[in-house]
Amino acid sequence: MKPMHWIAGALLTLAGGDLALAQTRDQGPWWPHPRWGAGDQAGASNWITPEKVLAATALVKTGRMLELGHVYERGMPLIGSRSYNLFIPSFPTAGPFGPNGIVFNDEYVAAEIGQVGTQFDGPGHVGKQMKLADGTETIVFYNGATTEDMRDPYGLKRNGIEHVKPILTRGIYIDLAAYKGVSTLPEKYEITVADVRGALARQKLKESDIQPGDALLFNFGWWRLWPKPISTAGSPAYAGAELVQWILARQPSMVGSDANLDGPDALVHSELTMKNGIFNLELMNFAALEKESAYRFMFVFTPLRLKGATGSPGRPVAIL
Amino acid sequence: MKPMHWIAGALLTLAGGDLALAQTRDQGPWWPHPRWGAGDQAGASNWITPEKVLAATALVKTGRMLELGHVYERGMPLIGSRSYNLFIPSFPTAGPFGPNGIVFNDEYVAAEIGQVGTQFDGPGHVGKQMKLADGTETIVFYNGATTEDMRDPYGLKRNGIEHVKPILTRGIYIDLAAYKGVSTLPEKYEITVADVRGALARQKLKESDIQPGDALLFNFGWWRLWPKPISTAGSPAYAGAELVQWILARQPSMVGSDANLDGPDALVHSELTMKNGIFNLELMNFAALEKESAYRFMFVFTPLRLKGATGSPGRPVAIL
Amino acid sequence: MKPMHWIAGALLTLAGGDLALAQTRDQGPWWPHPRWGAGDQAGASNWITPEKVLAATALVKTGRMLELGHVYERGMPLIGSRSYNLFIPSFPTAGPFGPNGIVFNDEYVAAEIGQVGTQFDGPGHVGKQMKLADGTETIVFYNGATTEDMRDPYGLKRNGIEHVKPILTRGIYIDLAAYKGVSTLPEKYEITVADVRGALARQKLKESDIQPGDALLFNFGWWRLWPKPISTAGSPAYAGAELVQWILARQPSMVGSDANLDGPDALVHSELTMKNGIFNLELMNFAALEKESAYRFMFVFTPLRLKGATGSPGRPVAIL
Amino acid sequence: MKPMHWIAGALLTLAGGDLALAQTRDQGPWWPHPRWGAGDQAGASNWITPEKVLAATALVKTGRMLELGHVYERGMPLIGSRSYNLFIPSFPTAGPFGPNGIVFNDEYVAAEIGQVGTQFDGPGHVGKQMKLADGTETIVFYNGATTEDMRDPYGLKRNGIEHVKPILTRGIYIDLAAYKGVSTLPEKYEITVADVRGALARQKLKESDIQPGDALLFNFGWWRLWPKPISTAGSPAYAGAELVQWILARQPSMVGSDANLDGPDALVHSELTMKNGIFNLELMNFAALEKESAYRFMFVFTPLRLKGATGSPGRPVAIL
Repeated sequence: MKPMHWIAGALLTLAGGDLALAQTRDQGPWWPHPRWGAGDQAGASNWITPEKVLAATALVKTGRMLELGHVYERGMPLIGSRSYNLFIPSFPTAGPFGPNGIVFNDEYVAAEIGQVGTQFDGPGHVGKQMKLADGTETIVFYNGATTEDMRDPYGLKRNGIEHVKPILTRGIYIDLAAYKGVSTLPEKYEITVADVRGALARQKLKESDIQPGDALLFNFGWWRLWPKPISTAGSPAYAGAELVQWILARQPSMVGSDANLDGPDALVHSELTMKNGIFNLELMNFAALEKESAYRFMFVFTPLRLKGATGSPGRPVAIL
Repeated sequence: MKPMHWIAGALLTLAGGDLALAQTRDQGPWWPHPRWGAGDQAGASNWITPEKVLAATALVKTGRMLELGHVYERGMPLIGSRSYNLFIPSFPTAGPFGPNGIVFNDEYVAAEIGQVGTQFDGPGHVGKQMKLADGTETIVFYNGATTEDMRDPYGLKRNGIEHVKPILTRGIYIDLAAYKGVSTLPEKYEITVADVRGALARQKLKESDIQPGDALLFNFGWWRLWPKPISTAGSPAYAGAELVQWILARQPSMVGSDANLDGPDALVHSELTMKNGIFNLELMNFAALEKESAYRFMFVFTPLRLKGATGSPGRPVAIL
Repeated sequence: MKPMHWIAGALLTLAGGDLALAQTRDQGPWWPHPRWGAGDQAGASNWITPEKVLAATALVKTGRMLELGHVYERGMPLIGSRSYNLFIPSFPTAGPFGPNGIVFNDEYVAAEIGQVGTQFDGPGHVGKQMKLADGTETIVFYNGATTEDMRDPYGLKRNGIEHVKPILTRGIYIDLAAYKGVSTLPEKYEITVADVRGALARQKLKESDIQPGDALLFNFGWWRLWPKPISTAGSPAYAGAELVQWILARQPSMVGSDANLDGPDALVHSELTMKNGIFNLELMNFAALEKESAYRFMFVFTPLRLKGATGSPGRPVAIL
Repeated sequence: MKPMHWIAGALLTLAGGDLALAQTRDQGPWWPHPRWGAGDQAGASNWITPEKVLAATALVKTGRMLELGHVYERGMPLIGSRSYNLFIPSFPTAGPFGPNGIVFNDEYVAAEIGQVGTQFDGPGHVGKQMKLADGTETIVFYNGATTEDMRDPYGLKRNGIEHVKPILTRGIYIDLAAYKGVSTLPEKYEITVADVRGALARQKLKESDIQPGDALLFNFGWWRLWPKPISTAGSPAYAGAELVQWILARQPSMVGSDANLDGPDALVHSELTMKNGIFNLELMNFAALEKESAYRFMFVFTPLRLKGATGSPGRPVAIL
């Protein structure tokens, strides 16, 4: 059965970078994608089928909608050399027009827009330097796309975020902080599968309640510190090899958390996103969810179709 | 009854700019908003209550999801001096990191991001130059906010897009082009209420099927020309005073179209958005809807919460 | 004699904002400029006549050229919400072209380019809120230009930096730090005219050696701290009312320093630049000059002609 | 003698890309630079010695200063996907401050700032794809710097424009349009050495009047069409192999023209700038010079020291 094979293949690649497998442009350790096929650029958003959408809407009971993201603003924490600037050019920007003196304002934004604040990593964000069988040194991304396939100064030619489908799926909220009885998980703590199972059990959910294509959202309690998470020394709790393997076996459309979920070996970025096209929504905000006892809900996140972008900002919501 | 009074007040303002009414900061021809109250910044997105969400999800039958927006890309048509630029800083932007040689790409976007491509006008986009009762000359926006309340070089202090709620509502698609039997409505054509009623009837919908808080989406067939609509000489068909009055009476949360819906008197911008907080999603793409006979559906549009922005890009979808 | 009258008028305005003089668009406390006339936008760069250029070149003895500015780079200190970002879009940005495989790189800069690092304040940078005789509340800039004359979202319509002439003049270096025997002047120290005279005397220069149109460059020793001057708590030494009056009487084309020269009352910005069009080059770097005993030289600074900009970056040099 | 050898070497490389010479990181067909040595990043700006500055100032007779560049503005012609945007964030950007109500304006510029309008190509702008002796495929720039040496998303690590010295030298104006008796040289016309000699003779200059380190400025009459030169179909007149060889033998610090001087084989970019570090100032404006009979003057161009940039805007001037 394909999924099993796929998982096996994915796990195999966990073992180490350089496999005995051929690593050509057509075939390599993680490409073509065993489920979505050669040429696919939508990754695990392919799980969002009409059936999946119906399964998600079936979870709506009260119609209450909760915000799961942060506001984008100057001064929010940014990684590395990224920046976020918003201006109002003049005030008003245009007008007055006509006898009624109507005026208009615009905003100008200059930012690494898909990689700041609440951010969704697309298929062109993470790659790995490799030597292919023909001796070419290149970088390989989701589904075997290489530097040559993708590189363009004005937007990725392949694996741009515009290929990712809107995410409207079942959201599974896994409140690790509540399970551990802490307001925020300790730094550098590797989350175990037992933790996840314990959190699910506390929420009266079984592992088998998770279905392929769900969005798995992990609460570290880290959102409480916003806007300080990034500037804090050290890294937050993270998913290591064990949890990454468990996530892969769940076959989600995406993962999310109030941090970036990833640990020192970057397995979330490499195993989930790069190899399997399971997208990662970082720096979510679970303030609204905390006041509820809601663990399954309709989850909506619609990545902006910015042609050739590596990621997207957005406004994730839960509908209870 | 409040709504009637509200509509009457709104229509009154249609008659002319300078009324005998006091126009102070606290009270003016269109403020405080009779329904949402003084200080409200969410406008007609307030219609999106839990009940409204349930009414929207009740329309989901098959779970099929359709895109209703364009891809954002260099070279798309832009109004006036607006611009849209996206870069990939180097390739890759960061890395390689660690023994696995993991690398990352970012994108940098510099654009009037809320006012390019498929764009949603928020409460801070449209204002009117006025003289208040105390002699102050200022610009007044939604709910009486003035230049003094809003002006800041780095984002509006009031009426920023971040105050608008996510739109998850019933979408009503009104296919004017199909009703008129044309591929695109003629330029400078003022759409009549009879046209709208005819289009609804053709779609087996009654005017009374429209409920407060619905999103009203008008098809001009204009999306067919994309990416050329703006550069075309002249303006597309539009809503004039009659249709604007009809829309006001329907009390939608927002309107949308594949143009900007507005005519030479800018009544959509002024009467709907500025005075009544009914937001306007411009330059939609109805290519996917055309292949369906779907006129009522769950409609989702989640404006980005860019603090102090005048509008938002986004990815509107219909779920059938 | 005009200059005397002019200085008297300028000093008069030092006394207080609201004068009994008429403050119309045509005439106000500092406009029209008594020397350069109504409509002038070049300010004290008008001093740069052919005679002045000859006087400057006459100072060249050895031909040695010294840098008097900082390098512009990410991470340099910035005031307020200003930013400076430079990218290389991809690498290379374009190509390869032709049989020789020629490629090209571009850089993309997003910055308050005329107000970061070594920066030159132009005639549109500083204004003052005023009520004119006709009751209009506006902001008035150099030579009486108002908000209405200048405001445009895409560049000042009047008083843009492109009107300022290239500065090639006699540079007079006034080493206040050396005179006071300190590496950097103490913070919040108001420089006295006696200090300036003492510094000149130490340099074997007389006050009468300063000629109209010279560039007066004041060393605080502050450049030593770069890139830390702005982040340092407190403000550096500054020119107060006494020194500003002395500078006005010298009639320089511009002033410069390794800080911004200005004190808590902003007299440098208001009296020199706004009222008299004497431009101010901030955050200079005197590292190279310190090793010399050079106090008079040819000074060159060519502001970029960025249409409608408020200031300019640049590369000031001294030629000994 | 070194210079002869250098010219010979440079010419040799004109013959073809792939030489029998070793092409290692340390030694290749054009590196290390025979005159400026391994590691040099200043190129032919090294000619600007104190003696050269004295030779330039010696040309100053009247002190008249002429602009030789264009104003930078929205709407100017741009190559490829480059852009130029300038904003005034609000109006004013900051303030009012203090009892005097002082306000400030900033400008925000987002542009390929060193590669728009009158632009100066630095040592990191032009490279060539090559295979080195050790099999590495890379791009090689001025003085042998490779992709590995230079690539960084936030500015070139090597060969950035900040290494180029201020240009204050003798300017030699060669009016080809006047010599040919045309207002603009015909398109696709390869300028001959005979043309240049004819133009010099018409100007009463001998070839031997040109000295190493001079700036050679070629007038095509193309500035007359500004702001339309780039949008014009076809390319302007250009320097081909013969003229490039002649220029190399003159050993200028830089070349300039009112176009980009280069022809279909990009020999100006590759032979002059990439191989020999002779910088190229493009899109100059000779309107002011046309009214004079001035062919030798002091020439000043001070590239901005934007760390890691590929080029620079600026304000070239001639002092007669």
